[in-house]
Amino acid sequence: MKSTTSRATIERLALYFRALRLAEEDGVQIISSDEIGKRLSIMPVQVRKDLAIFGQFGMKGVGYYTRELANEIGKILGLNYHWNIAIIGVGHLGGALANYKNFTSIGFKLTALFDKDVRIIGSTVHGVKISDIKNLKLIVKKREIHIGVITVPARQAQIVADQLVDAGVKGIWNFAPIKIIVPDHIHLVNEDLSIGLSTLSYHISRS
Amino acid sequence: MKSTTSRATIERLALYFRALRLAEEDGVQIISSDEIGKRLSIMPVQVRKDLAIFGQFGMKGVGYYTRELANEIGKILGLNYHWNIAIIGVGHLGGALANYKNFTSIGFKLTALFDKDVRIIGSTVHGVKISDIKNLKLIVKKREIHIGVITVPARQAQIVADQLVDAGVKGIWNFAPIKIIVPDHIHLVNEDLSIGLSTLSYHISRS
Repeated sequence: MKSTTSRATIERLALYFRALRLAEEDGVQIISSDEIGKRLSIMPVQVRKDLAIFGQFGMKGVGYYTRELANEIGKILGLNYHWNIAIIGVGHLGGALANYKNFTSIGFKLTALFDKDVRIIGSTVHGVKISDIKNLKLIVKKREIHIGVITVPARQAQIVADQLVDAGVKGIWNFAPIKIIVPDHIHLVNEDLSIGLSTLSYHISRS
Repeated sequence: MKSTTSRATIERLALYFRALRLAEEDGVQIISSDEIGKRLSIMPVQVRKDLAIFGQFGMKGVGYYTRELANEIGKILGLNYHWNIAIIGVGHLGGALANYKNFTSIGFKLTALFDKDVRIIGSTVHGVKISDIKNLKLIVKKREIHIGVITVPARQAQIVADQLVDAGVKGIWNFAPIKIIVPDHIHLVNEDLSIGLSTLSYHISRS
């Protein structure tokens, strides 16, 4: 459970970060753990517990400076590094991710798009030109891509993952509905859209 | 932490379900908790613990009948109900979800698509015609939609959620990067694509 718990904590930190940024936009300069919890439907004690893991933030009985806390959490999450990301497979999902504004807003930079379909190679999505997947290694190295996002069909996912590892990415975000194998030094996050829907199904079928 | 744990358990059940279906396709008729764990990078003891919550499956020292266990987990997750889903907002993400084959494969039926853009209303995505969002309530009732998927911009998400609740859906799957409020009897799952990327960032920045 350890790893699950810590993963859950990191995911909550990401939620706090976004909630704080939104609060900042609302002009909220000082925010309490109760308010953060309320905005996310998370228990305030959980919020305080999570933040305590990483240091002493805020002022007892007063709250946290919204921007300061957001910046601190952003640093904890490494969002201050402005990672370069590449999307491999510019189909429906890849195209949707390329146009997903939130990535930029939390500091990720879409630096390259790859596909093998000659009909779309050369065209531009969200200001980034689609490159031939044949040039993946060259371009990933040249543009210093840190994260590769895999949105190709399941049967091609492992091949693409191997190419990304070979090209020197640090992390892979896999949307293909299949388990891919990567070396220990590569960080892998599997995004499975069927999980959210299954969770919903579980609860609805019980109501 | 209780709710986090149970949510994590349900998410793992969904992973088991998919792994078992894939194993079935591979022709695996009997599978051990070790093998399930190996396919998902989850500790076998965790797999056994999760399954034990819902009943006594499998044969001591032998394993589980792949299909039987998949069906059992499918029932636990309510995937045997074939929920009708509607996607509201057929932009990049909505279009990607409409074309996401895995939903059908786990038993969800895309029954309606809605948008307010007259330029796309009437056109067809994945065999489903895009309807005018003005007719949401009527169509949701008529086609017995159980789940509404919100893929509209953040500022329109709450309005759409209210319309879905009013139309009688049981659950909402929200992709808009904003917290929406729904009555207690409505099940809400928020999908936040920036979380996965932030988790990756957290680990990469530490390596």
